[in-house]
Amino acid sequence: MTDSSILTADPKNTAKKLETFRSIRPLVHCITNEVVQEITANVLLAAGASPAMVVGEGETEQFASIANAVSVNVGTPYENRVAIMKKAARAASEAGRPWVLDPVAAGGMPWRDKIIFELLELGPAAVRGNASEIRFLAGVGTGGKGVDSLDSSEQAVEAAKTLAKKYKTLVVVTGETDYATDGERVLAARGGNPMITLVVGTGCSLSSLLAGFIGANGASVETCIACCDYVNRAGELAAARAKGPGSFHCEYLDALWLLQPGDF
Amino acid sequence: MTDSSILTADPKNTAKKLETFRSIRPLVHCITNEVVQEITANVLLAAGASPAMVVGEGETEQFASIANAVSVNVGTPYENRVAIMKKAARAASEAGRPWVLDPVAAGGMPWRDKIIFELLELGPAAVRGNASEIRFLAGVGTGGKGVDSLDSSEQAVEAAKTLAKKYKTLVVVTGETDYATDGERVLAARGGNPMITLVVGTGCSLSSLLAGFIGANGASVETCIACCDYVNRAGELAAARAKGPGSFHCEYLDALWLLQPGDF
Amino acid sequence: MTDSSILTADPKNTAKKLETFRSIRPLVHCITNEVVQEITANVLLAAGASPAMVVGEGETEQFASIANAVSVNVGTPYENRVAIMKKAARAASEAGRPWVLDPVAAGGMPWRDKIIFELLELGPAAVRGNASEIRFLAGVGTGGKGVDSLDSSEQAVEAAKTLAKKYKTLVVVTGETDYATDGERVLAARGGNPMITLVVGTGCSLSSLLAGFIGANGASVETCIACCDYVNRAGELAAARAKGPGSFHCEYLDALWLLQPGDF
Repeated sequence: MTDSSILTADPKNTAKKLETFRSIRPLVHCITNEVVQEITANVLLAAGASPAMVVGEGETEQFASIANAVSVNVGTPYENRVAIMKKAARAASEAGRPWVLDPVAAGGMPWRDKIIFELLELGPAAVRGNASEIRFLAGVGTGGKGVDSLDSSEQAVEAAKTLAKKYKTLVVVTGETDYATDGERVLAARGGNPMITLVVGTGCSLSSLLAGFIGANGASVETCIACCDYVNRAGELAAARAKGPGSFHCEYLDALWLLQPGDF
Repeated sequence: MTDSSILTADPKNTAKKLETFRSIRPLVHCITNEVVQEITANVLLAAGASPAMVVGEGETEQFASIANAVSVNVGTPYENRVAIMKKAARAASEAGRPWVLDPVAAGGMPWRDKIIFELLELGPAAVRGNASEIRFLAGVGTGGKGVDSLDSSEQAVEAAKTLAKKYKTLVVVTGETDYATDGERVLAARGGNPMITLVVGTGCSLSSLLAGFIGANGASVETCIACCDYVNRAGELAAARAKGPGSFHCEYLDALWLLQPGDF
Repeated sequence: MTDSSILTADPKNTAKKLETFRSIRPLVHCITNEVVQEITANVLLAAGASPAMVVGEGETEQFASIANAVSVNVGTPYENRVAIMKKAARAASEAGRPWVLDPVAAGGMPWRDKIIFELLELGPAAVRGNASEIRFLAGVGTGGKGVDSLDSSEQAVEAAKTLAKKYKTLVVVTGETDYATDGERVLAARGGNPMITLVVGTGCSLSSLLAGFIGANGASVETCIACCDYVNRAGELAAARAKGPGSFHCEYLDALWLLQPGDF
């Protein structure tokens, strides 16, 4: 099901996007789930961004309009927090700030799916999910098992294109191979290591990092795939040194920090 | 106060229960406290389960009825979240799904104690606590210091049996030695390492792991003690390699992942 | 801008304060932000305190009045939680228990600033912030970039004295050099390592540790600077062994645990 028209990530593009990201040190406003707040902040700090988790009733809109980018993740939605997410998404869009949606577990429960579709209508610059989530949002799948994907990323490429076109957004599907598309072009990033799936929040933090890459470099397929390529390389370096998921977590943060544009 | 009728965990039982747990990869619905969500997810992932923290008003009941098991932990209760816990516990019981209660800091504050007793009435498959918590719930103690136990686990064996009989549940008391009882039989797991008490969430995550073991193997004294035995072994391996609580945390997650049924 | 009247931390004072802290093992009631709860608990455990995150409507006041100290951090404020913070601060003050305020991102957003000034009126024993936060609270600056300081700690010494006098509190400014003042005297702690700024919650957890030091040793400039000196030494030891922020996090917790009074 791979398509010869899909191009692999260009290391020079990754280097350039990482360099710009580091020079700008984007302020990323994260409204993410309860479980992954610490690793999300640590991934952004290690990579070179400035994370801020702002969720207050009286400050979220203001902050979303001054941050370089906003990251919205529906991993543990509840009514009060969903209202904050929508406020932030609207404020970001009105201020011309990009925001990224991570539709965690889309397709699993109708209540959550409704929230995700409402957020999609608010104009994210990008959507990052696993294959089951993206396929469900595009109308061709039924979701995963809890937060795990039951499909391979290859099986979601056409769905990603459909979703990108429908909502005029970028779509990133991560998995053994990662794909980024604007609905027309598709770029792929290979590599990484499956050990990363044993550390909670590595996918969620990638979405927040993607917001930072977009905030620094602009929203494009190239920006998205550079972010995936960078993270995959860090995952490979970490896996080469790790004995298991605990040491992988440490090594992954170290690798994100140690990797330089010149390494690509 | 040790009793000659208390049998020590059989390594073959641990091996068998771990093998079944890994083959099923149970989906564990965790409603846990604010502090330990990340380590809880990471412990479940490292051990071989699929954790999902679902707390939304419109999805918790549905999810509790489809997960293999539910874990309820009252470490940081507040009104909205307590309502979600009760919904999940009821939904799990109605759907025939086992759920485990971790009565954090029982005996410390009347407001919390009332919540814990209300949850106990909803029919947990197992209750996992430290000696002070279990003794208080059984009516023979006054609680600990904050979240720390002031009693040894040996001192809670009779209380555990009383509590198990009264609520028709399994009771697990963890400490230097761990005990599991159905009110009649008592099994013990020795080993582990006190360093584990210096890493927040190791006890709480054990309760969620116990939910996973029960979800995969069924609710029995043997299932409970196998889970304790597995965790103790991981703690010993981690302590042998750790310099302090930071490295212990990493080594513990690695050990949970590295340990195989054949190692018992 | 350094002042010859500022004395450097005395290692003997650090040793003595750490020894008392460890012998008392203070129970520290933390109401902190969503992002740093786990590292805060782990820092307190590694250092030798007993952390408890209690935020329930019906138990916070009771717990604040029995803990050795309370830590209030406004990193992720929202209305319900702010109400809890105020209840805890009032209860601690009424019971004669010291509490520490961490005014995260003061000067960034008016809604949050109002909350911080309201908390300041409730009588903290100490305020711990970065230079931008302390300067803003003293009326001589405009805040930082998100949670990052844009000023050096030297630039905040006079502001810290002003703030301390105005609110009759101790003020600690952390940065490359740390300063503690009661409005008259100023003590400084040098050392540490900038790698610590790449791990989320190291500053926030210092505020909670400071609460523990004050709970065990009493509120004084000497107590505050001893806490900073201890943490700086741990940061140096960790940085000497770390490859990046992931390994630094582990090494830092190990170092907090390994350091003994006799090492100063």
